[in-house]
Amino acid sequence: MKNRTLAGTLSKKDEKKEVVLKGWVQKRRDLGEIIFIDLRDRSGVVQTVFNAEISKEALVIADSVRSEYVVEIKGEVVERDEDTINPKIATGEIEVLVSEIKILNASLNPPFSLTDDIDVSEDIRLKYRYLDLRREVMQETFKLRHKATQSIRAFLNDESFLEMETPMLTKSTPEGARDYLVPSRVHEGYFYALPQSPQIFKQLLMVAGFEKYYQFARCFRDEDLRADRQPEFTQIDIETSFMSMDDILDMTERMMKKVMKEVKGIDVQTPFLRMPYDEAMERFGSDKPDVRFGMELVSLSDVVKESSFKVFREAVENGGKVSGLNLKGKADQYSRKDLDNMTDFAKIYGAKGLAWLKVEEEGLVGPIAKFFSEEEQNQFRSLLEAEAGDLLFFVADKKQVVFDTLGALRLKLAKEHHLIDESKYEFLWITDWPLLEYDEEAGRYHAAHHPFTMPMESDLDKLDTDPGAVRAQAYDLVLNGYELGGGSLRIYQREMQNQMFEKLGFTKEEAEAQFGFLLDALEYGAPPHGGIAFGFDRFIMLLAGRTNLRDTILFPKTASAQDPMTEAPSPVDIKQLNELHLKLN
Amino acid sequence: MKNRTLAGTLSKKDEKKEVVLKGWVQKRRDLGEIIFIDLRDRSGVVQTVFNAEISKEALVIADSVRSEYVVEIKGEVVERDEDTINPKIATGEIEVLVSEIKILNASLNPPFSLTDDIDVSEDIRLKYRYLDLRREVMQETFKLRHKATQSIRAFLNDESFLEMETPMLTKSTPEGARDYLVPSRVHEGYFYALPQSPQIFKQLLMVAGFEKYYQFARCFRDEDLRADRQPEFTQIDIETSFMSMDDILDMTERMMKKVMKEVKGIDVQTPFLRMPYDEAMERFGSDKPDVRFGMELVSLSDVVKESSFKVFREAVENGGKVSGLNLKGKADQYSRKDLDNMTDFAKIYGAKGLAWLKVEEEGLVGPIAKFFSEEEQNQFRSLLEAEAGDLLFFVADKKQVVFDTLGALRLKLAKEHHLIDESKYEFLWITDWPLLEYDEEAGRYHAAHHPFTMPMESDLDKLDTDPGAVRAQAYDLVLNGYELGGGSLRIYQREMQNQMFEKLGFTKEEAEAQFGFLLDALEYGAPPHGGIAFGFDRFIMLLAGRTNLRDTILFPKTASAQDPMTEAPSPVDIKQLNELHLKLN
Repeated sequence: MKNRTLAGTLSKKDEKKEVVLKGWVQKRRDLGEIIFIDLRDRSGVVQTVFNAEISKEALVIADSVRSEYVVEIKGEVVERDEDTINPKIATGEIEVLVSEIKILNASLNPPFSLTDDIDVSEDIRLKYRYLDLRREVMQETFKLRHKATQSIRAFLNDESFLEMETPMLTKSTPEGARDYLVPSRVHEGYFYALPQSPQIFKQLLMVAGFEKYYQFARCFRDEDLRADRQPEFTQIDIETSFMSMDDILDMTERMMKKVMKEVKGIDVQTPFLRMPYDEAMERFGSDKPDVRFGMELVSLSDVVKESSFKVFREAVENGGKVSGLNLKGKADQYSRKDLDNMTDFAKIYGAKGLAWLKVEEEGLVGPIAKFFSEEEQNQFRSLLEAEAGDLLFFVADKKQVVFDTLGALRLKLAKEHHLIDESKYEFLWITDWPLLEYDEEAGRYHAAHHPFTMPMESDLDKLDTDPGAVRAQAYDLVLNGYELGGGSLRIYQREMQNQMFEKLGFTKEEAEAQFGFLLDALEYGAPPHGGIAFGFDRFIMLLAGRTNLRDTILFPKTASAQDPMTEAPSPVDIKQLNELHLKLN
Repeated sequence: MKNRTLAGTLSKKDEKKEVVLKGWVQKRRDLGEIIFIDLRDRSGVVQTVFNAEISKEALVIADSVRSEYVVEIKGEVVERDEDTINPKIATGEIEVLVSEIKILNASLNPPFSLTDDIDVSEDIRLKYRYLDLRREVMQETFKLRHKATQSIRAFLNDESFLEMETPMLTKSTPEGARDYLVPSRVHEGYFYALPQSPQIFKQLLMVAGFEKYYQFARCFRDEDLRADRQPEFTQIDIETSFMSMDDILDMTERMMKKVMKEVKGIDVQTPFLRMPYDEAMERFGSDKPDVRFGMELVSLSDVVKESSFKVFREAVENGGKVSGLNLKGKADQYSRKDLDNMTDFAKIYGAKGLAWLKVEEEGLVGPIAKFFSEEEQNQFRSLLEAEAGDLLFFVADKKQVVFDTLGALRLKLAKEHHLIDESKYEFLWITDWPLLEYDEEAGRYHAAHHPFTMPMESDLDKLDTDPGAVRAQAYDLVLNGYELGGGSLRIYQREMQNQMFEKLGFTKEEAEAQFGFLLDALEYGAPPHGGIAFGFDRFIMLLAGRTNLRDTILFPKTASAQDPMTEAPSPVDIKQLNELHLKLN
């Protein structure tokens, strides 16, 4: 049997053709005289028919096959009877009358049903990942991933970028997240580190004059895992020379526009909204706001700064703030007890409490209403655009706590009340990021992004006097409330890089020991450069409409960084350890 | 200054245009009144001209710049005088009269000249890799690498392959080469291994029903390095289901044909020559023969098996063999002393000696001539197609020693006498590989390729009686004497895989512990499958006409697996080791 045809491509135009199909038994219905087998391959499914009239021999074999057997069949494509047409599948108008069948391989009964709506623990799915991946939803996700990969590549190739491969066995640097280490056999007591990102290498490629670099780079972080983290992940890594921030943002927008069109058939409007970090925090309580819906935070500090309600007034007096948000028209869905219980939610984010007021025709109603003058109440209503039936929430605290709490509450309420149009893809840029973050514990500043980020020229004079106020030439791309990627212009002059390391509390010797080669490189004609990197797994998750990052990775690790299939990590021979000059503690 | 133009794209059609260029100072010639600066960017070089008539200010700045400074200039494109046209560069007919120049970054004097023909140790080149990579030959190599990458991808995408990413943190298996290990922090005493290849994962992707997989996969082997080995390397990794060996070879040939055309402009003839392993050894003494020239080995065992020359006769009697080769027309270039000295070369390959005979009009001349009858001498001449002036070499030993020695001698002589047309690209397949190799030391058989290789059906009956004679459904692609890649059909039935592990001396428990998940997978409807993998770095080396694998990798390691630039590997904090539950020995 030769010249295989793909099952999913068959249609009425193939009527009367003799075809050879190879694939898996998706389903088998035995009606005694006649057996139907739905045959699946990578292209789809087709119904095949066995009966004694066509081939007694084939019918006997068909009787013995079971789900997930691998078979090869020869048969004739025929139109189905009007009343057996199946509009749910692409090949539903035809079926294949089988004259020959050969079993290529048998299959045990799979430990779970290979359908999209399975109810089985993720550990079992991962243990039998090769079966889990046969499910249509998984097949479609990885086809989409492939398509997105090629779409992005084609764009970058057209823009004259070079795809380049940076090393995986690199040098460990204590800055940033925890490295995965790789002991050296040749150099006793020495270790490589797996890259957390190709950051320094891509900058060196700019110093090397390549000007336009990209890579689908595997990156590694040995951090405690959350639902949306994996020990290894893929990053679309981009770096350019001689391009301004506007150039980079514009290029990114064109790239995203192309991918969204090619992969999802969606026309995305460009340019994307650009929002300074401070504004994002004030309006959405988040540096990655989901702007598919409103319910924005409103600052009420000015209204309450002289209020008789001490909690609010003192928050402002102590350098904190008070903000509120308005859940439109849902006041009647919340009992006083419901609302009191929401304090527990607020506490997760460090708030001491969550105040609320219901809006009624007569005025604001609720336990704290009495503390506010009519003028103050009117201002609440006006600023929060409140009408009868609305429910207002307030947090008074340190700025970050107010933002975190109301930002989280905004998302929670939007989900609960289905305020988000899930079919929408809303991109936006967050700009004007702080360059440095003060670390109370360590008593020093940390790089908010990484130590190679270029400060804004207009803020340079504040580097010594008010480091926390210096903004960076950095930008994040946000999609539907997820940070899709981020980047910055980089420092390209040694003098400024020295100064930055000094601000970050590095001694000259420490900077030299860890980043000496980069500092050296900056002295040999480093061009102005900058770039961006995107979390590719997460992007695929959003494009595929999935909610679990692991569904976008072929062989992911569990939350405890294990692979239930291979059982990695695993113990190794003592001989292997000896060769690496290591002992277990 | 806006709208940058690329220097290397300027030509006479741009005459009178005002352009903005950004790049590096390649060369500066100061003639006092006038200064010439060759400005380089990723596209090429253009000559720029500074004089006081155009801009006094620009002239002053031009006076201060040095090699490798990064500058931005504005100027007018003008035709050069007839006598100053430089045909050596693409932009040689024009130059740019500079009205403005801005220094974007200064540069120290580079530690070596950034030209193609540098005479500097590789360690220094690697330490300043960001400068080394600025050299034109390096820039061209990585542009070629990019181009080859995209050409291969486009081919595979067109053939409906999916690009898929397999994990880097995997399970250590003692089979094969030495693994690089990655200690787990979460699971005390447990380790991941970096993949030596994605072999098992790609097979599982076939079990998962994807049917056509590819990846540019980073692979890792902790072996002692040779000139053409790196601890990490890139492999074009391909696997397919339901394809025959012929299908896979044909697809590969079409891929190679396309790449050679697109990257080198060369039309490669397909189908490629296919040669069984045994024939390659007999004719070329190599399993990766360079077939760009002849000088083939000729078996003379039948001629000498009853010879009075004991050394030859006994080699055959003891199960070994005698072969010879003919260096045409070069006999007069070798003195008796030269020829005696060549014995040392033969000894490298385990041969006890290297016999020779010069062909003269009168007959064969040399120390061993007297041992052979006229009939034997005539047969030598006839089989080796010898004429007066030729020089014949002979080795009598165990088969492998004969092949190794004469195979190496053949290459050495071809290089010394320039018998190889270096502009040629000669592909060929080696097929019919032995499935198993007997390991004298371990007293058992090893998989010649890997334990998942499918035996030839016609040899299956020999698996028990004569395992060494069983051939594999395996194939290597050879280009110009280099192994470019190899692959095989895989075992897809558990029963046969069990049998194979047994043959390889695995107990049931060992097989289960190491490969249990693969064995399980074979029981759930594994399709017939097979694939191939290519050493991409080496392929680029051949395409770029380089001889050093490190010149095809952006940031390679030295022979002692170090990076002189980052100084990886390096010591790490004791805190890092403690977190990994490790102590140095």
